[in-house]
Amino acid sequence: MLVTSLDQAEESAWLAALRATIPAEELVPANGVTDPARFDVAIVANPRPEQLAPFAALRFVQSLWAGVEKIVSNAALPLDVPLARLIDPTMSQTMAEAVAAHVLALHRNHPHYRRAQNARRWDEAAMVPAHARAVAFLGTGELARASLALLAHLGFERLAWSRAPRPIDGVRTFAGHEGLRAMLAQTDILVNLLPLTPATRGIVDGRLLSALKPGAALVNVARGGHVVDADLLAALDAGQLGEAVLDVFHDEPLPPDHPFWAHPRIQVFPHVAGPTDMVSAAAVAAANIRAFREGRPIIGLVDRGRGY
Amino acid sequence: MLVTSLDQAEESAWLAALRATIPAEELVPANGVTDPARFDVAIVANPRPEQLAPFAALRFVQSLWAGVEKIVSNAALPLDVPLARLIDPTMSQTMAEAVAAHVLALHRNHPHYRRAQNARRWDEAAMVPAHARAVAFLGTGELARASLALLAHLGFERLAWSRAPRPIDGVRTFAGHEGLRAMLAQTDILVNLLPLTPATRGIVDGRLLSALKPGAALVNVARGGHVVDADLLAALDAGQLGEAVLDVFHDEPLPPDHPFWAHPRIQVFPHVAGPTDMVSAAAVAAANIRAFREGRPIIGLVDRGRGY
Repeated sequence: MLVTSLDQAEESAWLAALRATIPAEELVPANGVTDPARFDVAIVANPRPEQLAPFAALRFVQSLWAGVEKIVSNAALPLDVPLARLIDPTMSQTMAEAVAAHVLALHRNHPHYRRAQNARRWDEAAMVPAHARAVAFLGTGELARASLALLAHLGFERLAWSRAPRPIDGVRTFAGHEGLRAMLAQTDILVNLLPLTPATRGIVDGRLLSALKPGAALVNVARGGHVVDADLLAALDAGQLGEAVLDVFHDEPLPPDHPFWAHPRIQVFPHVAGPTDMVSAAAVAAANIRAFREGRPIIGLVDRGRGY
Repeated sequence: MLVTSLDQAEESAWLAALRATIPAEELVPANGVTDPARFDVAIVANPRPEQLAPFAALRFVQSLWAGVEKIVSNAALPLDVPLARLIDPTMSQTMAEAVAAHVLALHRNHPHYRRAQNARRWDEAAMVPAHARAVAFLGTGELARASLALLAHLGFERLAWSRAPRPIDGVRTFAGHEGLRAMLAQTDILVNLLPLTPATRGIVDGRLLSALKPGAALVNVARGGHVVDADLLAALDAGQLGEAVLDVFHDEPLPPDHPFWAHPRIQVFPHVAGPTDMVSAAAVAAANIRAFREGRPIIGLVDRGRGY
C-alpha cells in the first residue's frame, strides 16, 4: 500500500489518521518510494499522472476527495483499476449545513440587507414564507440528497434534476434536457452539486441562466468548471440572476484581479462548503480497503467512462 | 368591538383580515368613534395612552404584537382588564427561521468571509462541527423554544436561560443570576429572545458581555432596549465579543449617524426577524376573542406586574 499526492502540509496528519484506522496495512508516503511494484493500493488526492505512473501494480485506488474529475482522466491509471471517490457522511453533513446556511441567508434577504447597511438604509425587503420558495438542485448524488434532507426541516419547496430520472421522497424530481428547463423556470434558488464531467463542464452558462425564474439566486458549491464566468456576470448585470454565492472557481485561490471579488451581488467563499474531515475520511478509506482485501463491495466506485 | 392604533398604512388590510376571521363581531377603526362606551374588546398594536383613554368599557384587549412592553404600562388600561400578547405559531416559525439563518451564518464564518472578500483575501477560517458549537438563548418563551427546536435539526449544542427554572427536552437549561454566568461562560453564540421588562432592560451590558466565552457572537432579535449600545461597541472593539447581529434598536429606524451602521463586526437588520403575519395573527386574535366571549381560557394572557 502507499499514499501519494497528498497536500505536503497535511501529509503527516493524514498518515497518522490513516495509520490509526488501518494498522494492519503498511502505509508509505509515495515520495521516496524506490520499489513501486510492491504497492497494490493507493490512497490519493488528485495525483498528477507522473506521480502515479511508477505504480504499475495498483489494483485499487481510493480518493480522499469526493470530486474525482482530475484522477478520472489520469492516463497513468489503467481503466481496469477500480477507483473509489470519497462518500463520507460527515462531509455530506458539512456540505448540507453550508447549503442550508446559504439558502437561508438568500431566503431571508441577507445580501439585500448587507447592501442596505453599507448605504445606511433602513429598507425592509418583502417576506416570503419558506414553502413558497423553490430551492432546486442540479444533481441528486450523496451531497445533494443530504442537503435536500436538511432543507426539509426548514420547510422549503424542494426540486432536483439529474441526467437520468431518480425519485427522492418529498422532492419534485426532473430529468433530461426538457426536465431541466421545466425545473429552472420555477426555481427561486438554484444549488449546483453536480459532479464535474465532460457532460457537465460549463453547464451553468447563459442559456441555463436565462431559463431561470427572473431574479433567482445561484449557489455553486460543486466545481468552478461548471460555470461560464462571463455568462454569470452578464446574467447578474442584466438582473436575470439576482444573487450568486460562489464557493468554487476555475482557478483557486481566485485570482486577486478576478471581477467576482468586487461584484455587489456575488459572495465569494474560499472553497469551504464541504471540506474533507481527516478522521471520518480515514475511516471511510479504511472500510473500503478492508472491503477490497476481502472481496466485498466497494462504496463510491467510479464509472471512469461516465466520470463519477 | 373596536380596532385602535394600527399602523395607518396597514389599517385597511388589517381590518379586512380581521373581518374575514370574526364576521360575527362589529369591527370599527378607533379613529372617528363617537360612542366609545359601546366597545368592550380592543385589538391593538401598542396604542398610546390618549388613544386608549376614551374606551373605558373595555373588558379584553388583544395585542397584534408579541412584545407588549409599551401597552403593559399604559396607564389608560386598568390593571384588571385582561391583556393578551400575540402567540402565533406562524410568527414563531418565522422567528426560528431568522435565528437559524443568523446562527448558521455565524457558525460557518460568513462575516469573516465577507471581510475577506472585501480585502480580496482567500482566507479559510477554522471549521467547527455544529455539535461543538454552543448556542445559548436568553429566554425560554414561545419564540426561544421554536428556535431551539429548529436548531436541534442542525446539530448544535443548545442552552437556554430564564429567570425561573424551565426544563426543555434536549436543552441544557439555566436559571437565576448564577445560572446566567455559568451559561455565558460556555456560550459561542448568544441569542436574545427575552421580553422587554424593567427586569431585562439593559441586561446585555458590559458585565454580561464580559462573562461570555471570549470571541462569542451575539444575535439580538428581541428588543433594542435589552442592549447597552456603548457596552456592546466596547466589547466588540476589545475582541471580547466577536460578532453582533442586531435586528432591533433603541430607536427605529436606526438613526443614520449611529455607529452600528459602519462597524465591521456588526450586521444591521431593519427589525425583520419576526414580522407579524396578518392572516395568521388575525386567526389567533379571532380565536382569543371567541374564547373571551364564551368564557374559555385566553392564550397569551399577560401578567401586567411581571410585564409579559
